[in-house]
Amino acid sequence: MGYTVAIVGASGAVGTQMIKMLEESRLPISKVRLLASARSAGKELPFKDQMITIEETTENAFEGVDIALFSAGGSTSAKFAPYAVKAGAVVVDNTSYFRQNPDVPLVVPEVNPDALDKHNGIIACPNCSTIQMMVALEPVRQKWGLDRIIVSTYQAVSGAGQSAINETMAQYHQVINDKLNPKTVTAEILPSAGDKKHYPIAFNALPQIDLFTENAYTYEEMKMTKETKKIMADDSIKVSATCVRIPVLSGHSESIYIETKDIAPIDEVKAAISAFPGAILEDDTDHQIYPQAVNAVGKKETFVGRIRKDLDIENGIHMWVVSDNLLKGAAWNSVQIAESLHDRGLVRATKDLKFPLQ
Amino acid sequence: MGYTVAIVGASGAVGTQMIKMLEESRLPISKVRLLASARSAGKELPFKDQMITIEETTENAFEGVDIALFSAGGSTSAKFAPYAVKAGAVVVDNTSYFRQNPDVPLVVPEVNPDALDKHNGIIACPNCSTIQMMVALEPVRQKWGLDRIIVSTYQAVSGAGQSAINETMAQYHQVINDKLNPKTVTAEILPSAGDKKHYPIAFNALPQIDLFTENAYTYEEMKMTKETKKIMADDSIKVSATCVRIPVLSGHSESIYIETKDIAPIDEVKAAISAFPGAILEDDTDHQIYPQAVNAVGKKETFVGRIRKDLDIENGIHMWVVSDNLLKGAAWNSVQIAESLHDRGLVRATKDLKFPLQ
Repeated sequence: MGYTVAIVGASGAVGTQMIKMLEESRLPISKVRLLASARSAGKELPFKDQMITIEETTENAFEGVDIALFSAGGSTSAKFAPYAVKAGAVVVDNTSYFRQNPDVPLVVPEVNPDALDKHNGIIACPNCSTIQMMVALEPVRQKWGLDRIIVSTYQAVSGAGQSAINETMAQYHQVINDKLNPKTVTAEILPSAGDKKHYPIAFNALPQIDLFTENAYTYEEMKMTKETKKIMADDSIKVSATCVRIPVLSGHSESIYIETKDIAPIDEVKAAISAFPGAILEDDTDHQIYPQAVNAVGKKETFVGRIRKDLDIENGIHMWVVSDNLLKGAAWNSVQIAESLHDRGLVRATKDLKFPLQ
Repeated sequence: MGYTVAIVGASGAVGTQMIKMLEESRLPISKVRLLASARSAGKELPFKDQMITIEETTENAFEGVDIALFSAGGSTSAKFAPYAVKAGAVVVDNTSYFRQNPDVPLVVPEVNPDALDKHNGIIACPNCSTIQMMVALEPVRQKWGLDRIIVSTYQAVSGAGQSAINETMAQYHQVINDKLNPKTVTAEILPSAGDKKHYPIAFNALPQIDLFTENAYTYEEMKMTKETKKIMADDSIKVSATCVRIPVLSGHSESIYIETKDIAPIDEVKAAISAFPGAILEDDTDHQIYPQAVNAVGKKETFVGRIRKDLDIENGIHMWVVSDNLLKGAAWNSVQIAESLHDRGLVRATKDLKFPLQ
């Protein structure tokens, strides 16, 4: 006997990776159900050796579901996750909608698995750019404490979904084959499908991911700030981010600067990261070994390198952190949360229904 | 009457831009001579309405030259710049070879033009990534002082020369038309032609520019540290850099964090940058206005945006700085130095020969 697992948003860039991660998961699964918008309903996608027909996501679609993995945008989660909980499922939500809700644990399983114990039916999976930073920094925080983080990201287009991947490839076709100036290619999605203006990403770097908030930071940047504090359960950690989209298909890279509370010897930092589950040290400048986006694609781990002391600040450390944003940044972290819920006997263990039906 | 100006390395990515910048320069020019390696000698390149034959760079090639712009690699500058000085020319060297020499001014004309007065025949043009940072930060330093800089760069492949541009385009052909995985494209130049291993840049980000030094920083990163202190004439400014190559053809972007000595109101910072020569403010998050590499190509200015307070540190400011690395980062800054030398009556004004002939 196993669980019935539903994927909401099964046809998207993350959803298709969730299917793959479930195939590789040690979770006991008796049935997989694929849900998506009416537009995708009726199409088929493979799970192991069977073809599964995509169903439309509706209020009544969650009967018999034990675990529902949501990755179809915040409004879909807002609308349907409470119905999944009401039907008895535990929801792992990969959108930003519930992340700052105090009734919702925000979990990176290597970092704060205990937060799962207090779940009320919905667990939020953090933003991709936050997750890999947490995996790299938690071993440092545990030993030396964390005072502040300054991070500049180099984020892949797949983080903006399949349409952004398609747009990027189409722009490269225009530059390479039609000899267009990168400035003049067709741009209708990036930097943010929901914003007014759209700019080329081919041979460009866009310092905007998601919309701008009122404080001149973007929502993506504020996610890194707020989610770090919640995951590490410490509001005193200072976090400022600059989030940038670059023309990489998958694999987010991050240039991270931290100041530890106690001075941390670099060799010990490397050893701590190397020993931390989910983190892989790739740091050997003598042999040009450092994490690269193209090498991280398809891997579940977070890769850390270029670890070095700040030149002036004794408790300052720089590092370069890379992970597959669709896997550890989304699909794998979500499935890993489901595995952790199973290990802790927390699947379908909801008490009161805290989330209003809409 | 005007100057005889020689370009050494005329056929390279920077050299060809130097020709263009001389065409647009207000410098009185009577003759342009193009020098390069024996391999390029005999080829012709246009200057305004005439075709100029490239000559081989030799010890005796500088007779009658008033201004020699060098951009053919450090070893060429080391070998031939002293001969140019001996022949009576003033040298503007765009390589790193003389930059830390105490007898050689390192100049960004908007920032430290007075340093030209003490020249001994050779003036160094700073590294591309340093120059644009100086243009953005000098107006801030002048008003509020600068305590520290943390910078993460997003550098274009043209900074590694024409062969790196060719390699990048060839890799995109392989991915787009031959459907190769970005991981498996042909890589023989980047991250550094002089290093052992070569990695793909198409759809990738490489946290290595130039070779690694012994302190785990690269030479490129240490250039940003050392050159900033020399240009701003202040060894106490703390500078740590992470230099990253991304798949952009031209236009370096930089995510810069600074701490000022006095607290600087953001509106005043914007006004100071906006008023500074060579800097253009592009900062309007309400209308998605920020600097972009593809827009900076072909422009001489440095574009600054995303200016905002750090979320926690009162004297901390983040910004996003973009400039054409071949122009302000190299060719234009070199020609601008020549113009400043002319304005100050310093062309051919050398005294003792400080640089040994090799």
